Amino acid sequence: MRLLVTNDDGVHAPGLEALVEALSPLGEVIVVAPDRERSATAHAITLHKPLRVEKVSRNGAFYGHAVSGTPVDCVKLALVSLLNEPPDFVVAGINPGTNVGTNAIYSGTVSAAVEGAMNRVTSLAISIDSTDDPDYTAAAKFAARFLRSLVANECPPGMLFSINLPDLPGDEIRGVRITRQGRLMFREEFHERTDPQRRRYYWLGGELPEFDEADEASGDDTSGADTDSTAVREGYISVTPIHYDLTDYAAIERVRSWSFE
Amino acid sequence: MRLLVTNDDGVHAPGLEALVEALSPLGEVIVVAPDRERSATAHAITLHKPLRVEKVSRNGAFYGHAVSGTPVDCVKLALVSLLNEPPDFVVAGINPGTNVGTNAIYSGTVSAAVEGAMNRVTSLAISIDSTDDPDYTAAAKFAARFLRSLVANECPPGMLFSINLPDLPGDEIRGVRITRQGRLMFREEFHERTDPQRRRYYWLGGELPEFDEADEASGDDTSGADTDSTAVREGYISVTPIHYDLTDYAAIERVRSWSFE
Repeated sequence: MRLLVTNDDGVHAPGLEALVEALSPLGEVIVVAPDRERSATAHAITLHKPLRVEKVSRNGAFYGHAVSGTPVDCVKLALVSLLNEPPDFVVAGINPGTNVGTNAIYSGTVSAAVEGAMNRVTSLAISIDSTDDPDYTAAAKFAARFLRSLVANECPPGMLFSINLPDLPGDEIRGVRITRQGRLMFREEFHERTDPQRRRYYWLGGELPEFDEADEASGDDTSGADTDSTAVREGYISVTPIHYDLTDYAAIERVRSWSFE
Repeated sequence: MRLLVTNDDGVHAPGLEALVEALSPLGEVIVVAPDRERSATAHAITLHKPLRVEKVSRNGAFYGHAVSGTPVDCVKLALVSLLNEPPDFVVAGINPGTNVGTNAIYSGTVSAAVEGAMNRVTSLAISIDSTDDPDYTAAAKFAARFLRSLVANECPPGMLFSINLPDLPGDEIRGVRITRQGRLMFREEFHERTDPQRRRYYWLGGELPEFDEADEASGDDTSGADTDSTAVREGYISVTPIHYDLTDYAAIERVRSWSFE
């Protein structure tokens, strides 16, 4: 198995190291990751300046490639230039902080996986519901187990998964749920302050609500699946099959009936 | 009508100016746009540094707010802090260069509209199939006409549209088609070069293929709609209803049948 591993926290992040360690027994692991933290970069790419690639060592041995770009740049560069043949899977993470609900759209981790799938490589993003230096052991183990399952279940190429784990030791996790993306969104506010030169600035802050309104809304959902955030809150590993088709098919018929004169 | 107008080419872009001019007769137009070009920033947001907001004048009169962030930062800041009440619509553009097919995922213009819809404001992104200083007249006129149609057709809040126009004078455009997002993707390559200090760098390039494979693929599409790129290539205005639900509902049932032991 050939695995391309990346993240949005940078090549030196502990979540990446835990992932590399857990996946190494599965085959060849190739690390191509941003040279520094690039979280909340979503699907941004670098068009207007060149990218640099540096080799990074760890414990005296080659560890991976550090790229001066975004997570999506890393996946593109790996697939187009750095790798001689395509990987079997792209794995992005492990991200400290969940990527559940609508917020997943901002995530560089999720976007790296999306980029893999856009190139017909089955890809996963893995995140933990904690931002305080979590224990990555259970998530890393699950990543390896999930990849083996994909092979055993003959997963077709180009599938795409966002996986979120509760911040619990492995033996306290209650199981795996296949979920849909909820609608959890940060309650945002901009802190408006004055800098030491007496100029005004704005800085984005906010908090994640406990409650996901998608759990109550019937909406278009006919899958019967729980939301990602609910599964995690209840102690389950959430596996959400995702895609990158922006078309709102349900709206096409409605909009066709409108006049644009 | 209160309209929030933004783009990803920066507050001084001619596409934005054409849009502002065409929309002003409809009501109050509030410009909140990046202070410089921020294309291909997708849904990136600025978390790790403050945002600055400067007032910009044009012909001696207040024109809008220039923000030191991404298009999505602009929409967030406008909705949360700068505007006293929510706008009726968010309009992003006019972007020189189409946002059709899978490539739309990289677009700061499209993402600005997505952010509007995530906040329950009906939003549109408008792009023209030309990168060479196109004539924005027809697109700006259509934006105004489309907004009037949304009102006339009682469009519910939070709908989301990506509009792409061919680079043609208004009287040569053949009409409007409601489309789905195709799968057109850049054929990418990284130019690998050596800088004046003899260090290697990579720079992303590529070209857009003529042919959209989604036109031939049956896939999951049951809408019968043409793809966005085909409509534009054939001289039509493409209106694609889009959404931001990443869930691959079709895959949920399949993945549920898999074992993860």
